[in-house]
Amino acid sequence: MARTLKLTIAYDGTEFSGWQRQAADRTVQAVIEDALEPLEGERAVLTAAGRTDAGVHAAGQVASATVRTARPTRELHRALNATLPPDVRIMAIEEVPAGFNARFDARAKTYRYWIWSGDVLPPALRRTAWHVPQVLDLVAMREAAAALVGPHDFASFQAAGSDVSTTVRELMASTIAEYRQGCPAWTPSAALGIEHANTGRLLCYEVTGTGFLRHMVRNIVGTLVEIGRGRRRSTAMSEILASRNRAHAAATAPPHGLVLWSVGY
Amino acid sequence: MARTLKLTIAYDGTEFSGWQRQAADRTVQAVIEDALEPLEGERAVLTAAGRTDAGVHAAGQVASATVRTARPTRELHRALNATLPPDVRIMAIEEVPAGFNARFDARAKTYRYWIWSGDVLPPALRRTAWHVPQVLDLVAMREAAAALVGPHDFASFQAAGSDVSTTVRELMASTIAEYRQGCPAWTPSAALGIEHANTGRLLCYEVTGTGFLRHMVRNIVGTLVEIGRGRRRSTAMSEILASRNRAHAAATAPPHGLVLWSVGY
Repeated sequence: MARTLKLTIAYDGTEFSGWQRQAADRTVQAVIEDALEPLEGERAVLTAAGRTDAGVHAAGQVASATVRTARPTRELHRALNATLPPDVRIMAIEEVPAGFNARFDARAKTYRYWIWSGDVLPPALRRTAWHVPQVLDLVAMREAAAALVGPHDFASFQAAGSDVSTTVRELMASTIAEYRQGCPAWTPSAALGIEHANTGRLLCYEVTGTGFLRHMVRNIVGTLVEIGRGRRRSTAMSEILASRNRAHAAATAPPHGLVLWSVGY
Repeated sequence: MARTLKLTIAYDGTEFSGWQRQAADRTVQAVIEDALEPLEGERAVLTAAGRTDAGVHAAGQVASATVRTARPTRELHRALNATLPPDVRIMAIEEVPAGFNARFDARAKTYRYWIWSGDVLPPALRRTAWHVPQVLDLVAMREAAAALVGPHDFASFQAAGSDVSTTVRELMASTIAEYRQGCPAWTPSAALGIEHANTGRLLCYEVTGTGFLRHMVRNIVGTLVEIGRGRRRSTAMSEILASRNRAHAAATAPPHGLVLWSVGY
């Protein structure tokens, strides 16, 4: 009898050509489907909440699959992680009601984007933060980020050449904040090796929305950084949004600062 | 005229065969000396505060060198980082009085060791934390860690085959604590992707001492984890110390959890 599974997945996107299976490249979907195939007897297709681009990471990607295997989820969980390479891990597997679809049933997704603003990029951050050498005006960036909350037409922040029925999306939260070194000395700042890089700041942009257009988060971050550098005013964000013209927003921020953080159902 | 430089260095040790120059392997010392050579005209030799082993990281390694170049330190700093690979960065360069020696003038060194205690290791932690699947008794580990503070003969925690004049060292601090997810949501827990791995805990052992024997921190951590797993009592630490016998301590913890955090002068 067919069962529907919900998988929560974390990966370091550095060595992946994104989520979606492609003919030749190493992708997260292909690596997991290939690990599942010997357990299932045939290939089960995974449907992800968000098909992340090459280089983008995930802490809480969610995928659904319909399988026939009778193995308990606990055993499947262990067997999958035993086969998978260490840059992708199944954090949880649950059995869910038939018909559950990780993509279409998602009610909200949260992304985080990390920016290191400082002269020298600490090596421990090089895979997960965008290095911006300039000093950034956090107050202006915060104002600009807040202007995006609500339902808006995000056509200005959509990758060129996209073809979707509507470019209206709703953001419930859009904030940027500095990582505070005032946390106890034993926080992961150590693993990150950032306390010694005292000429820089680690910033995190967090955004939650019902859905996102292609490259939307990275295009927003590119524009936020332009505002932080003083090249545009914080009020430019609303003007760019209103223009519905991709050419008015800034260049796309690089993929490696972005993490698909969680998906709500 | 010769000048003495003090370099503060961070590196991800994953792809290095440790600090010290060797004939064939990629080492941190060789990579930095090779980057410095064209700027200096000949090879300047770097002396490090601590010669880290293969796989060990550094957030605040310190090295000294005597150079003849007249270039300003600011220019040297930029030129070095422009040449170096991204897994090693010069965080600072200062000119210091002649005779400064990063190794012999060091008054204290601090190391941190990261442990992930949980079923599944989040991919973002795989280069910087030791994965211990078992639940660990943090109270017992804390008691055992505290027993090491003070001047002691650390012969039990020295790598076999070491040849030093004395195995007495003094520890000023030796603590273990859990990383608290109660920190604001935008701390680097995001970059680490650990909040979703809710079946695990990130622990950090921090130790400061006047000096360390070879493998001393990793041998201490190996023993702390045995105590945390309940295989030994927390009082075993003092007994092992008193025995001055390497065979009484536990196996060496793996290198990739260890970070040379800072050096005091």
